[in-house]
Amino acid sequence: MSKKTDHAHCACGDQRKAVQVDPEIKAATLRRLARIAGQVRGIQKMVEEERYCADILVQISSVQEALRGTSRHLMYNHLKHCATDAIRKGPESAEQMYNEVLDLIYKHSR
Amino acid sequence: MSKKTDHAHCACGDQRKAVQVDPEIKAATLRRLARIAGQVRGIQKMVEEERYCADILVQISSVQEALRGTSRHLMYNHLKHCATDAIRKGPESAEQMYNEVLDLIYKHSR
Amino acid sequence: MSKKTDHAHCACGDQRKAVQVDPEIKAATLRRLARIAGQVRGIQKMVEEERYCADILVQISSVQEALRGTSRHLMYNHLKHCATDAIRKGPESAEQMYNEVLDLIYKHSR
Amino acid sequence: MSKKTDHAHCACGDQRKAVQVDPEIKAATLRRLARIAGQVRGIQKMVEEERYCADILVQISSVQEALRGTSRHLMYNHLKHCATDAIRKGPESAEQMYNEVLDLIYKHSR
Repeated sequence: MSKKTDHAHCACGDQRKAVQVDPEIKAATLRRLARIAGQVRGIQKMVEEERYCADILVQISSVQEALRGTSRHLMYNHLKHCATDAIRKGPESAEQMYNEVLDLIYKHSR
Repeated sequence: MSKKTDHAHCACGDQRKAVQVDPEIKAATLRRLARIAGQVRGIQKMVEEERYCADILVQISSVQEALRGTSRHLMYNHLKHCATDAIRKGPESAEQMYNEVLDLIYKHSR
Repeated sequence: MSKKTDHAHCACGDQRKAVQVDPEIKAATLRRLARIAGQVRGIQKMVEEERYCADILVQISSVQEALRGTSRHLMYNHLKHCATDAIRKGPESAEQMYNEVLDLIYKHSR
Repeated sequence: MSKKTDHAHCACGDQRKAVQVDPEIKAATLRRLARIAGQVRGIQKMVEEERYCADILVQISSVQEALRGTSRHLMYNHLKHCATDAIRKGPESAEQMYNEVLDLIYKHSR
């Protein structure tokens, strides 16, 4: 992390790392993602069996809700560690972080 | 399908079937879901490697978009076959279908 | 309406008309819109008074929910009259309607 | 503001105030809200004239987009002033702020 300058993450090539990840958030996120992977397999099976479209659509919407729950956990970690770190570093890195968070909310979030 | 009465689907226990699924929609949907399953595996790996939260959040948002694309295909099939079928059957089954579609849009869709 | 061909609406210049609007849906929609206009005025006042941002954001989100409720009513009318009309007219006008409804759901809806 | 303790806002009865509002954000937000109020009046007129439902639905969706743009501006102000203030005050008020922002994103945002 010694080469980190004004970023909230260390830039290791393209693979940027989180400033810090709470172990319980990491574990909970992995559990949620494993469940989501299972839900996707279930939907694949429903499509193969030509199940009623509306029932499949409800299942897709349930995966979307599960992804939102996962995002919320990761965003909590992001605010707590990465954003807080950036805000403490000074106005320039804070400004960069505000815009990143705004893009996550208004460009990327569903 | 002989036992179908005023539903747009045949109720075979809990496993309701679509009135009809266009083969190209089925194939495209399965391809999309396979890609989504791969994206979810990629996200699991990113979380394990403690990659930068914002980068993971963007990937989750990309899965959300992919799920929306999949929903759109299935909804097209639903309107074309199941909804059209229900609407042709008479006002009562049409009314039931309107409400089902509205729930899919306003309760379930993201 | 005599010049209508394969559209679900009569094209009167740019001002296309609904096939039919249920009077109770029209009245309920106008009541909802009047309430929404009042909510927007309330938000303008909050911004002028420099009220706490999060409280304003919650009010904006409440307008978003109210707009979704209004959309649901109009979409019900759309499915019941315009879409049903288009579907009954034949496969070409039905196809056009499916795509219009899909755009409303997946391109325009929030 | 001297009575403010661990909140990011001063609690003046129910009317909580923002820590600070940038004058250009305030002006831009009021301009946007005035435009939104005009759009809502336009939609009321469309409903009165029984205009084509899909055209009205597109206009509603345009108001929703405009509200999202307004929210983004207010959220920027919130992060820059209220959230930054709370984060600097210490872990407890920071924690409270993370949860407030998460609720704004995942419970209230559309």
